[in-house]
Amino acid sequence: MSEVFLYLCIVTGVTAVVHWRFPTPSSRHVVPQSSYEYETAYFTQPIDHFGFNAQVGEFRQRYLLSLKYWKPGKPVFLYTGNEGDITWFCNNTGFMWDIAPEFEAMLIFAEHRYYGDSLPFGSDSYATAGNLQYMTTEQALADFALLIEHIKSTLPGAENSPVIAFGGSYGGMLAAWLRMKYPNVVGAIAASAPIWMFDDLSPCDGFNKIASRDYRSTPGGEQCFENIRGFWAALNRTAEQEHGMFVVSLLFELCDDILDVNVLIDWFTAIFGNLAMVNYPYPTSFLEPLPAWPVSVACSYLNESRLYGEDLLNAVKKVVNLYFNYTGELTCFNSSLQGPSSFDVRGWDYQACTEMVMPICSRYESSVFPPSRWNLYGYVQDCERRWMNATVRPDWAVTFYGGKDISSHSNIVFSNGDLDPWSFGGVLTNLSHTLTAVIIEGGAHHLDLRAAHPADPQSVIDVRNVEKAHIRMWIEA
Amino acid sequence: MSEVFLYLCIVTGVTAVVHWRFPTPSSRHVVPQSSYEYETAYFTQPIDHFGFNAQVGEFRQRYLLSLKYWKPGKPVFLYTGNEGDITWFCNNTGFMWDIAPEFEAMLIFAEHRYYGDSLPFGSDSYATAGNLQYMTTEQALADFALLIEHIKSTLPGAENSPVIAFGGSYGGMLAAWLRMKYPNVVGAIAASAPIWMFDDLSPCDGFNKIASRDYRSTPGGEQCFENIRGFWAALNRTAEQEHGMFVVSLLFELCDDILDVNVLIDWFTAIFGNLAMVNYPYPTSFLEPLPAWPVSVACSYLNESRLYGEDLLNAVKKVVNLYFNYTGELTCFNSSLQGPSSFDVRGWDYQACTEMVMPICSRYESSVFPPSRWNLYGYVQDCERRWMNATVRPDWAVTFYGGKDISSHSNIVFSNGDLDPWSFGGVLTNLSHTLTAVIIEGGAHHLDLRAAHPADPQSVIDVRNVEKAHIRMWIEA
Repeated sequence: MSEVFLYLCIVTGVTAVVHWRFPTPSSRHVVPQSSYEYETAYFTQPIDHFGFNAQVGEFRQRYLLSLKYWKPGKPVFLYTGNEGDITWFCNNTGFMWDIAPEFEAMLIFAEHRYYGDSLPFGSDSYATAGNLQYMTTEQALADFALLIEHIKSTLPGAENSPVIAFGGSYGGMLAAWLRMKYPNVVGAIAASAPIWMFDDLSPCDGFNKIASRDYRSTPGGEQCFENIRGFWAALNRTAEQEHGMFVVSLLFELCDDILDVNVLIDWFTAIFGNLAMVNYPYPTSFLEPLPAWPVSVACSYLNESRLYGEDLLNAVKKVVNLYFNYTGELTCFNSSLQGPSSFDVRGWDYQACTEMVMPICSRYESSVFPPSRWNLYGYVQDCERRWMNATVRPDWAVTFYGGKDISSHSNIVFSNGDLDPWSFGGVLTNLSHTLTAVIIEGGAHHLDLRAAHPADPQSVIDVRNVEKAHIRMWIEA
Repeated sequence: MSEVFLYLCIVTGVTAVVHWRFPTPSSRHVVPQSSYEYETAYFTQPIDHFGFNAQVGEFRQRYLLSLKYWKPGKPVFLYTGNEGDITWFCNNTGFMWDIAPEFEAMLIFAEHRYYGDSLPFGSDSYATAGNLQYMTTEQALADFALLIEHIKSTLPGAENSPVIAFGGSYGGMLAAWLRMKYPNVVGAIAASAPIWMFDDLSPCDGFNKIASRDYRSTPGGEQCFENIRGFWAALNRTAEQEHGMFVVSLLFELCDDILDVNVLIDWFTAIFGNLAMVNYPYPTSFLEPLPAWPVSVACSYLNESRLYGEDLLNAVKKVVNLYFNYTGELTCFNSSLQGPSSFDVRGWDYQACTEMVMPICSRYESSVFPPSRWNLYGYVQDCERRWMNATVRPDWAVTFYGGKDISSHSNIVFSNGDLDPWSFGGVLTNLSHTLTAVIIEGGAHHLDLRAAHPADPQSVIDVRNVEKAHIRMWIEA
């Protein structure tokens, strides 16, 4: 699943790698039962859209199709799959299912190449630098564009159907980019799409600033904020003692023996960050099963003034338990769950190491996380080591997708939740009358794409209405 | 240089391949002396912009740079090089040089990869399917986009310079596409750019219809038209006689022994087609040294009513002499000059066989050329045979560049001469208030890009003024 890697200058002066994740499920996550009905289909794609060497071959892209609500000539709603199994995105994008009946829309959820069941070279897809050569956003967009052509040319009545792209997070970036690059898509709903998180387009401390604000703005948040800030030093102090890492492992009930405290710092950082991303107003199982407003719940363990030592570690232990064990099934915690061990994590790691390089840092004065600086040089070295000397090109996405210079494009709604740490890299103000930015007050990571819920704040209801109005406009144009 | 291959159903029923060329110089063409001053520079590009496999490597792209008229902050005029040596395009695009002073513009002429001195794998660039894998329009556009970034980031005062793309013929297609795909170019002058010549976007007999009209509309043109139409049968009749091909070779003073009359039919077809393309109102050396209005001169040999037999062949011989030997240096004619023998021809052949597949046919009732049908199946077979089984994808360019569905783009002037056979595949009417079409009455292939000339018709002067007005608008926006 998706991760942003950042170099962390922790208080001990050691540099560690922290993995940020877009909110995607852990390997033990079970796709929830849903009432959504679709068929699973496959479309044969060239592995290389941008070359004509027949030796490169073809692969089968998976997509999910629902014609339940569709009438000939009526729109196609295409979800531009992100970094994971497409069934999971299909089941977690209730907004498309909710509005399909009123638009009489066809629903397509297209899987991203190199994820899920859409592996260009099967189980060897990640085995060699040559096999990984076609794992790029450009190739993924071309897959979507060709799939649209396929549907339009083979499904009677679809030939003139307007196509709207939908996506959240990385999928939202792809939805926006698909509209920019391929005008056979008439418009895009790009939810929580940090398209400006590259190079120097956004300040690198934005993610951590917003996440920190999320903690600070809960009831008792000021104490919560200070306690988490104090936690990193407390953790280090304990770890530095004789048998310190043993004590830490015992205290946090880790399944595995961790010798490097930096690995744990990554792990805790990811937990606090992920809680901020999925801080939804009702219980969800988006990343892990969680209660409503999980950041507030986490802070309820940390709102005593100035916790110290073991008390502080025990309070954070409760947060870990909240995040990983809300349903109470685990007997120990696996700190490698954040690492690039499972297949999907691997895919995003490659992307983040080549094209999707997102600078993230943390400043002491504003952040709930340990201070860190963005160290491109170290980042590149680490990526080259992990990925067979892959060429890291941090500014290529800016060149190819235009950076902030995108006002000549049209028909995109960029939505962002003001609680979502990823919003720092998103489009937050209108760029033109057809490039529209909407903010979901009290909204976390692409709340608008979720199915309607009784606990939805009015803001997300309003934003969904704005999105529907734009879709209607694009269709009727 | 560039060629479109078409399958020709000649009157004998035999199918042959005819090579159409965009007007580019023959191998014996000498780049004319010019007063244009520029420096030659090189920029290191990734061979594969759309992949991150370090094993693929880098190459040096050549570009020509003139800062003579440029003031910091003022525009960059970028010529998007087509299928050949960039010095030739630089010296034949006088319009950019003419208007650079008033815009205080920097001039860059960027060479297209796999042509001229910009060979990704040196002399092996065409040797293997793997080496040819990066010979695509998408890679070429990415070269241009990255070169722009390079200039902007390294040349003090260029950082905020607006960039205008210029191109003619295939280069005009690239200029338009660069604007569509990369908004770091604020606008494009796409001269004689047949961006709609793919798949079924334009009728396949357009090229031949316009070329035929060119011959028909000269003084005595009706006779000229009928005589050329009669020529194909006369040629076949002579060839079919005993030792017929020997007689033909002798009559046309060929240097080489040609056994297949279809090869000669290709050759004559190309000569008549090329004359129509470069039918300029003053003497030029664009493709071959030619007098003013070469189609009229050719028709002056063919305007007697109903020429037959040897008289007809002798009249066409004068056309061959006009086209290849206007300066009177040759002692015999090389009919392989139209074939893929020289390096640049090879490059375009690969492109036409993979991505740039342009259907061309000829109908008996309207065409000065022998009737032919578009035979995609045979085309693909022939291309696969010639190019190591390269994958021919005739509709990919339509998917990637949007076909006729491009009205969401902006800031492109499409210019076409009404004498130019390639205009059949061009944009001839405004698509929006920022996608403008202009027609040069009495103009051949991208006459507007040539330097101003006393014999210029008012129409081309007007069109150049429209282009300048748009450039000014884009710069000031």
